[in-house]
Amino acid sequence: MKKIPVAILGATGSVGQKFIELLSNHPWFEITELAASEKSVGKKYKDATKWVMSNILKDEIGNLEVKNCVPNLKSKLVFSALDSSVAGEIETDFANNGYFVISNSKNHRFDEDVPLLIPEVNPEHLELVKNKNGAIVTNPNCSTIGMVLALKPLHDAFGIETVNVVTMQAVSGGGYPGVPSMDIIDNIIPYISGEEEKMKTEPLKILGKFSNGTIQNAKIKISAQCNRVSVIDGHLENVQIKFSKKPTKEEILNVWKNFKSLPQNLNLPSAPKIPIYYFEENHLPQPRLNRNLENGMAVSVGRLRECEIFDFKFAVLSHNTIRGAAGGTLLIAELMKAQGYFNGIINE
Amino acid sequence: MKKIPVAILGATGSVGQKFIELLSNHPWFEITELAASEKSVGKKYKDATKWVMSNILKDEIGNLEVKNCVPNLKSKLVFSALDSSVAGEIETDFANNGYFVISNSKNHRFDEDVPLLIPEVNPEHLELVKNKNGAIVTNPNCSTIGMVLALKPLHDAFGIETVNVVTMQAVSGGGYPGVPSMDIIDNIIPYISGEEEKMKTEPLKILGKFSNGTIQNAKIKISAQCNRVSVIDGHLENVQIKFSKKPTKEEILNVWKNFKSLPQNLNLPSAPKIPIYYFEENHLPQPRLNRNLENGMAVSVGRLRECEIFDFKFAVLSHNTIRGAAGGTLLIAELMKAQGYFNGIINE
Amino acid sequence: MKKIPVAILGATGSVGQKFIELLSNHPWFEITELAASEKSVGKKYKDATKWVMSNILKDEIGNLEVKNCVPNLKSKLVFSALDSSVAGEIETDFANNGYFVISNSKNHRFDEDVPLLIPEVNPEHLELVKNKNGAIVTNPNCSTIGMVLALKPLHDAFGIETVNVVTMQAVSGGGYPGVPSMDIIDNIIPYISGEEEKMKTEPLKILGKFSNGTIQNAKIKISAQCNRVSVIDGHLENVQIKFSKKPTKEEILNVWKNFKSLPQNLNLPSAPKIPIYYFEENHLPQPRLNRNLENGMAVSVGRLRECEIFDFKFAVLSHNTIRGAAGGTLLIAELMKAQGYFNGIINE
Amino acid sequence: MKKIPVAILGATGSVGQKFIELLSNHPWFEITELAASEKSVGKKYKDATKWVMSNILKDEIGNLEVKNCVPNLKSKLVFSALDSSVAGEIETDFANNGYFVISNSKNHRFDEDVPLLIPEVNPEHLELVKNKNGAIVTNPNCSTIGMVLALKPLHDAFGIETVNVVTMQAVSGGGYPGVPSMDIIDNIIPYISGEEEKMKTEPLKILGKFSNGTIQNAKIKISAQCNRVSVIDGHLENVQIKFSKKPTKEEILNVWKNFKSLPQNLNLPSAPKIPIYYFEENHLPQPRLNRNLENGMAVSVGRLRECEIFDFKFAVLSHNTIRGAAGGTLLIAELMKAQGYFNGIINE
Repeated sequence: MKKIPVAILGATGSVGQKFIELLSNHPWFEITELAASEKSVGKKYKDATKWVMSNILKDEIGNLEVKNCVPNLKSKLVFSALDSSVAGEIETDFANNGYFVISNSKNHRFDEDVPLLIPEVNPEHLELVKNKNGAIVTNPNCSTIGMVLALKPLHDAFGIETVNVVTMQAVSGGGYPGVPSMDIIDNIIPYISGEEEKMKTEPLKILGKFSNGTIQNAKIKISAQCNRVSVIDGHLENVQIKFSKKPTKEEILNVWKNFKSLPQNLNLPSAPKIPIYYFEENHLPQPRLNRNLENGMAVSVGRLRECEIFDFKFAVLSHNTIRGAAGGTLLIAELMKAQGYFNGIINE
Repeated sequence: MKKIPVAILGATGSVGQKFIELLSNHPWFEITELAASEKSVGKKYKDATKWVMSNILKDEIGNLEVKNCVPNLKSKLVFSALDSSVAGEIETDFANNGYFVISNSKNHRFDEDVPLLIPEVNPEHLELVKNKNGAIVTNPNCSTIGMVLALKPLHDAFGIETVNVVTMQAVSGGGYPGVPSMDIIDNIIPYISGEEEKMKTEPLKILGKFSNGTIQNAKIKISAQCNRVSVIDGHLENVQIKFSKKPTKEEILNVWKNFKSLPQNLNLPSAPKIPIYYFEENHLPQPRLNRNLENGMAVSVGRLRECEIFDFKFAVLSHNTIRGAAGGTLLIAELMKAQGYFNGIINE
Repeated sequence: MKKIPVAILGATGSVGQKFIELLSNHPWFEITELAASEKSVGKKYKDATKWVMSNILKDEIGNLEVKNCVPNLKSKLVFSALDSSVAGEIETDFANNGYFVISNSKNHRFDEDVPLLIPEVNPEHLELVKNKNGAIVTNPNCSTIGMVLALKPLHDAFGIETVNVVTMQAVSGGGYPGVPSMDIIDNIIPYISGEEEKMKTEPLKILGKFSNGTIQNAKIKISAQCNRVSVIDGHLENVQIKFSKKPTKEEILNVWKNFKSLPQNLNLPSAPKIPIYYFEENHLPQPRLNRNLENGMAVSVGRLRECEIFDFKFAVLSHNTIRGAAGGTLLIAELMKAQGYFNGIINE
Repeated sequence: MKKIPVAILGATGSVGQKFIELLSNHPWFEITELAASEKSVGKKYKDATKWVMSNILKDEIGNLEVKNCVPNLKSKLVFSALDSSVAGEIETDFANNGYFVISNSKNHRFDEDVPLLIPEVNPEHLELVKNKNGAIVTNPNCSTIGMVLALKPLHDAFGIETVNVVTMQAVSGGGYPGVPSMDIIDNIIPYISGEEEKMKTEPLKILGKFSNGTIQNAKIKISAQCNRVSVIDGHLENVQIKFSKKPTKEEILNVWKNFKSLPQNLNLPSAPKIPIYYFEENHLPQPRLNRNLENGMAVSVGRLRECEIFDFKFAVLSHNTIRGAAGGTLLIAELMKAQGYFNGIINE
């Protein structure tokens, strides 16, 4: 099979670098173009970026000449790792010119015709862009994804009314250079700009019902408190839930254990075999020990117990730059490819 | 004034060391005896402990010979930093033999005749040991103290019905050697043994009403989730409250701003001039920046905002080994001294 | 090919766990027995250890019953991760009873009939145990291995007279629980017990000449200063060298670039394709970015420059628990297998 | 005594903030003006900076209006915390207009008429600016100061020929925001731009002889290797020395123990009572435990031992933003005040 050529917008940032890392040796996609801001254009990629990934940058990528973020790229499938200060217009521009933009940026997440997608959670929302010749599909915020993955099977089975969440988020979520070391060594920052708002709005769209061509938001009350901690990768969240109908602990564990979804059924290349791992040990999940499960695409859950205020509480962990960013976005593209969304842009 | 001689039980551990640090140059108390477990007895203190404080150990303390933890000490006032595996019996033994034991250990916190005391919060509970010749008075758990200090004026003013708290706790809370570095660098541990139980029970006694010689526990529903993070000192907690009668944000801020209590009125040596600091900046309070306020005896509060589920939410920080342990215990002794509890044991 | 059954002595410690992780799916070896100290014997492995690796412990290993460290094991090939307080006698006991003990412990490193081996550096020293029916072969200290790998091709080409090294070593080198978090967060410990002595003696044996059945130690003057820093894995070392005949920078780079040795030629399963990577960027090598090169078996070198006092100076990094411990030990076993040392213990 | 009014240039950066912290309640100096770059001018100081010190910013300072860095300030004594990209011209401009500029910036350190000063080491170099009406005096680099303080008495007593140093430097040395957290959590950076050059040149001027109005550089061969580690404050350095005449270990310890200099004799407010502390314990000095000795103005030394290559080796620690930056600069001003250099600019 000939691979589908892809471009990365905002390739020089840390999410852009993670896309490059994950797309290395991908069975379906092949990076052919990298685009970034004015100051990088025309340079070799390796000279335009400070590579901060742990895999060595391959020459075939490092020697690509960085292009402008304008819709004259050859690849019709583009991954966007653009900064939100510029992503809005550029992504629209690409979509209007016949490109499929799979974006990690927040700008279009709440556009009515744009799916906000976690492939295991709401794959049916992709119909919003069915038969379109050019479209934007967005990946949720890194702190939203892990939690909603853990919530999805519970919501389907028992109905979730209220979610209370406190996050302890890794510094890589702030990009590079991002969080200054002086702010986080031996420290915690009890605030992440915009994060709490995202966590209380995004799940409602993601868990919403798709019917008659539109999404009916879920009715769940959510409160989020977001903290930055001294961890490189992996967001850990303490979650409390009130259900419409309170299940037993065993029922919840069963629902998690049996959860599989379309990406697993389609055997997508980046899909975790098991999307949700439950750990019996009290001291798990931990970012450093569990974030890389299934190449960083699984979420880890633990400490499920009854709550004095809500029905249940537990801890959930996911890798914020893989499942929560580049990996999640890539999985969207794989799902779209598997379902034929890109047939029109593949020259075979 | 001649200083009151004091002894420290469990002097070789990290809380014991902190007692020594805080009692250095104390205006009222003077360390004259150090006691510890069998393996240290008979050694010079400096040879029996690995000193991990940042102030240099003075020779006058370092050269003291470590004694047994049996009630034949000359000082009638003893601070206990004993491990909970042995504190129960030893402290009882001392109290029964005419000593005043001010303890940081958990063993007797819920004994009916033992005050569980935060001097600014429930000084009236000291009456439990009035006119006693020998008694135990206990300091609450390090994660409890900061939160309850912030809750106290709110509870008095508006009535608290429900408290939901998630903690991010410093490694010094686990003692020395305590938390292994391999467990916490680039990591979080979502569990601290026994901690959640303490946080949901201790506040009820502390905020309870003293009448007719007994304490009526407060009726507050509490849920706690406790995490260990990569911070040396300072527990940061995300707190949510539901009140009997919901106040405005300004009313809460006013209540905090105007809070003073007996230790401030008595001008106790270790009492913070201002017990509760409120920070307007979104990124505060932070452990590294704010834990040492008022020599580590003040609590710092910030990010007060309305909550989607409860009435309000905010972040509170306190120094776990000072206000939350040795410093809080010392303040209890100062309060008792100022109120004449030690008159019988002072030879003047 | 039927796999060779192997046992691990000291299986419950962190090096033991790393052996289990690395031997999972090994093409030549298969874990069939785990042994540890008295208090673990008879328990299932998963109940006898606190698993701190990031890969999930497989049930087939976790359910093995822990055995005693006595030479009645069925596997004739044993990897030793024993603590040095007990390794001496136990390893001798096994060797005397016909076992091949490949050890990560320090006890026998300087025994005359025991090779101290880095497979790329001194594979010929294995002849010390040729035709033996049972023997001990040892892996050097974790801080020695990375440095000596970088030195080997330079010593062969230009002759090394003097080596000055300062190390910044990861906490995992201290085992689990090992270094307390209170000692290393926001801190450095300028001392590691016994480490400097190892670094100035081990390289002399490893780089020694094997002739007439004995090893003639190399004549190199070495000074080492060892520090513990807040890094999980990966020892970084600043090295300065004086040569017999000073080469140019390009000559050194060429020698490193072209270095391959027996493990590469034999294509051993754990051998890095490229043993030594040189980085041109000033800010490399870094522990977090480069320690996992070639699955943690390569060493990374950078910042080669002329020195004001010695001839050259540079930085070298290697993964201390993989190349510097379990991985290095495993590579020794692979080399021995490939050269037929185990023919007598393989039942085929 | 009326306090001398002082201004701070570059007041909004982290060194500027540290000046403000140290000058709070200073017995001789009083901040009356703050100056910074164009974008801050005209704002209240508290709105122009992100305060990252742990002491709360006082309103009397926070409400000062930030001024331009041009020589129309009323205070004739200015502390410069300017970035080196602009410090050169601005400082010259001030000096030419009758101001005394005590600078922490590197730009003028090697000017022939500018002292590069550590008050305990080369106070006599101040004569370079004697009787001048306006002048620049500079503080050395943060990694230089601690080492040279430890070297000074040894150089005087035994003559130093060669110094080999490897540094492990705190992130605060890089300013704010400075070192990204993604670069340093669980990591080391083996390179700090320009640092090694400073360490091998600055000591030669500082330890140089002042005679006939000029400084004769010391003749010492120095090699430096500089690393950034995950520490907030405190540079730890491994130092090796070759002497003209090798002393015994006891002789070195005696020389350090007895070292006092002019700042101690003059009892300057910021002078440490004891400039050099020696620790017998193998595990000391450590940044977190010892950096704050004497309010961060003392240096800590430990692990003195004979060296296989040089004569002796040891570890030295100093607080890089206090002794190594703002505190060291302040001590220069105190020395100048005590010696009458500012008589012309004091209105009494």
